[in-house]
Amino acid sequence: MSTPSALFVDLYELSMTQVYYDRGMTGEAIFELAVRSLPKGWDYLIAAGLDRALAFLEALRFSDEDLAYVGSLPQFDRRFIEQLREMRFTGDVWAPPEGTIVYPNEPLIQVIAPLPEAQIVETAMINQIAYPTLVASKAARAIDAAAGRPVIEFGGRRAHGSEAAIEASRAAYIAGFEATSSVEAGRRYGIPTTGTMAHSFVLAEGDEVAAFDAFVSRYPGTTLLVDTYDTASGVNNAIKVAKQYGGGSVGAIRIDSGDFRQESWQARIKLDTTGLSDVRIVASGGLDEYQIAELVGASAPIDVFACGTSIVAPPDASTLDSAYKMVEYEGNAVAKRSTGKPSIGHRKQVWRWDDQDVIDRFDATPPSDGEPLMLPMMQSGERTTQGRESLEQIRHRAGAGRGPRRIEIDPSLLS
Amino acid sequence: MSTPSALFVDLYELSMTQVYYDRGMTGEAIFELAVRSLPKGWDYLIAAGLDRALAFLEALRFSDEDLAYVGSLPQFDRRFIEQLREMRFTGDVWAPPEGTIVYPNEPLIQVIAPLPEAQIVETAMINQIAYPTLVASKAARAIDAAAGRPVIEFGGRRAHGSEAAIEASRAAYIAGFEATSSVEAGRRYGIPTTGTMAHSFVLAEGDEVAAFDAFVSRYPGTTLLVDTYDTASGVNNAIKVAKQYGGGSVGAIRIDSGDFRQESWQARIKLDTTGLSDVRIVASGGLDEYQIAELVGASAPIDVFACGTSIVAPPDASTLDSAYKMVEYEGNAVAKRSTGKPSIGHRKQVWRWDDQDVIDRFDATPPSDGEPLMLPMMQSGERTTQGRESLEQIRHRAGAGRGPRRIEIDPSLLS
Repeated sequence: MSTPSALFVDLYELSMTQVYYDRGMTGEAIFELAVRSLPKGWDYLIAAGLDRALAFLEALRFSDEDLAYVGSLPQFDRRFIEQLREMRFTGDVWAPPEGTIVYPNEPLIQVIAPLPEAQIVETAMINQIAYPTLVASKAARAIDAAAGRPVIEFGGRRAHGSEAAIEASRAAYIAGFEATSSVEAGRRYGIPTTGTMAHSFVLAEGDEVAAFDAFVSRYPGTTLLVDTYDTASGVNNAIKVAKQYGGGSVGAIRIDSGDFRQESWQARIKLDTTGLSDVRIVASGGLDEYQIAELVGASAPIDVFACGTSIVAPPDASTLDSAYKMVEYEGNAVAKRSTGKPSIGHRKQVWRWDDQDVIDRFDATPPSDGEPLMLPMMQSGERTTQGRESLEQIRHRAGAGRGPRRIEIDPSLLS
Repeated sequence: MSTPSALFVDLYELSMTQVYYDRGMTGEAIFELAVRSLPKGWDYLIAAGLDRALAFLEALRFSDEDLAYVGSLPQFDRRFIEQLREMRFTGDVWAPPEGTIVYPNEPLIQVIAPLPEAQIVETAMINQIAYPTLVASKAARAIDAAAGRPVIEFGGRRAHGSEAAIEASRAAYIAGFEATSSVEAGRRYGIPTTGTMAHSFVLAEGDEVAAFDAFVSRYPGTTLLVDTYDTASGVNNAIKVAKQYGGGSVGAIRIDSGDFRQESWQARIKLDTTGLSDVRIVASGGLDEYQIAELVGASAPIDVFACGTSIVAPPDASTLDSAYKMVEYEGNAVAKRSTGKPSIGHRKQVWRWDDQDVIDRFDATPPSDGEPLMLPMMQSGERTTQGRESLEQIRHRAGAGRGPRRIEIDPSLLS
């Protein structure tokens, strides 16, 4: 998937930028993207999406076709078109590395660049970072709830388009998901792929035993979907085929509907009493972290949880409440004071200790201990080494330090 | 934006397809995508997304690179890779045209094709149609609530990625939105673009009057954002600049925070008493159809509503509860009977009268009156004339016949 085009801007970004050029307002601006508040019941976020945001900045250039469209709009003049033609992103970017546990008011990205460049990427920065951060954070809740049992992601069809689907698979993997059903996500990001069968496979074959037979003979160790007609008889049919083909032929059964606790117990007992205790049970169908926690708490014998909608389009948080705000211009701190939505001026650094974070001015004296979260990801438009990480590194980072944390905003920021 | 790659499939679609080929199961299958239930409080849906779904089917082919990845997965053999290499979509597609008002259980698309082709596009069909339908339907609720006042879409940053943002702009326009802030959506789909200024523009200038002056002198008739520091003084400053530049120089002011009812009244009175009754008031910031209805009901003097999050990532419906299910194979009706999620077999036609729809078997005797909703969009892999419509035609269609309707499912479908 290529990055969004340079025209992935809101019109006002172009309008403002034209005036900035007109008036020679090309001084250094610092913008920060931060989440204002957590969705209800959430304790933390996992930063994600930075890689694509950096790729967008690296690739930023207006093509002839882009410029022809901008030039067709009444408000833009030839001089501005030529300025856009020359525009490249030449600034610095600081951010917490992907996979970092973060909290409200902590910057997810900090863009330090000539005002036109920092302004024109506003929509792209929010759009490319907020959604992966939302998904990684929601997916982490499912991982936490599963208490060690594997969770896999089946959400491609429920995502808001194919880009969202693929980025959601990546974000869920960062949070600790084991695998995705998305082949494109597997190809693009090297995420393990997984899958079972659909009800249509059973329906096309007509007979459930024949369908299971066909699948097991082709894919030894596969997962059989047992609820096309009736879960109880589906389990019986899976057992029949497993017995026929012998040990290891059926790796798991998948239950996609009904009362998961009851269905999983009934299936487990049947499997165990027929000598198939190695056949695992996968549950899918509308599962979220609350249901997973309940099933785990009730010791339901479910070995793998598959999540879709709850991860890729969280019903409790369709978006994160985030904003990309200018915090300094030409060395001066700035902030808006709108009722209910004030911003906090000054370029920031976040210092982390085991039990708390302090959000401070970037230029304040660093503490003698504590870990800085904001690191240089791009310098003068070029990615740093820190800005190029493997997905496995990111995933590893996201596994540590989850949970609530005391966040202190240094009073000097509010003055 | 190109269509998703052919690898935008779930792994199980490939696994099932390999077995279908192995077993010669290439008979005609009919799959239908339908929404199972409406989000709470919703009365109807607006069908959208068909154009991109058809574009995906037209473009379906596995590239060498796609095939190299599939071939690297352990479960697929060389013969299957060659079968995928030859695969094209050769089937028929029927659907209600985009912009049609639709209801649960009414097909949003009907795919009639050899089983492998109909199966392998499952994820893409759901993914490409469900989200635009969700957005168009949610956007229609805002239009209905606004009772004739214009509504514009500012949601690009809140959407789940750039593809979602651009498709959301198109879907909102179908529902009756007047314009979008997204320049890419404007370029791609010819949607009018609109925009104002950000708080950062005022902050960079430092002085609100200077910022307004700079914007108005460059863009006569523009919209000024008045809540960067304090809405009351922002309105005063807008008035000052409007008076200085004279009639028509300020087209509107935008209020982005606070109590919209109170702020809009205070602004309206000030504008009117200073002879600026032609300056309009735009409200933005977290608005949804409920707030719009309340503001309209209270006669708040808001001339234009701008919506973002509520449209592009509806908090009350992060997804539509939809399924793409096989309803016939080789001429026989099929249906799954899973607890709570049964499907309805048989290829369907929907007949519409003023006050009701009847969902019937496709091959039932057509009624002497009534309008069929399912129309041929693709025949033998080629789009029909019906499958190529302008966005304006679609938008026009979506303006008619909104509201609840009695839906009858012919008993012959349930047998």
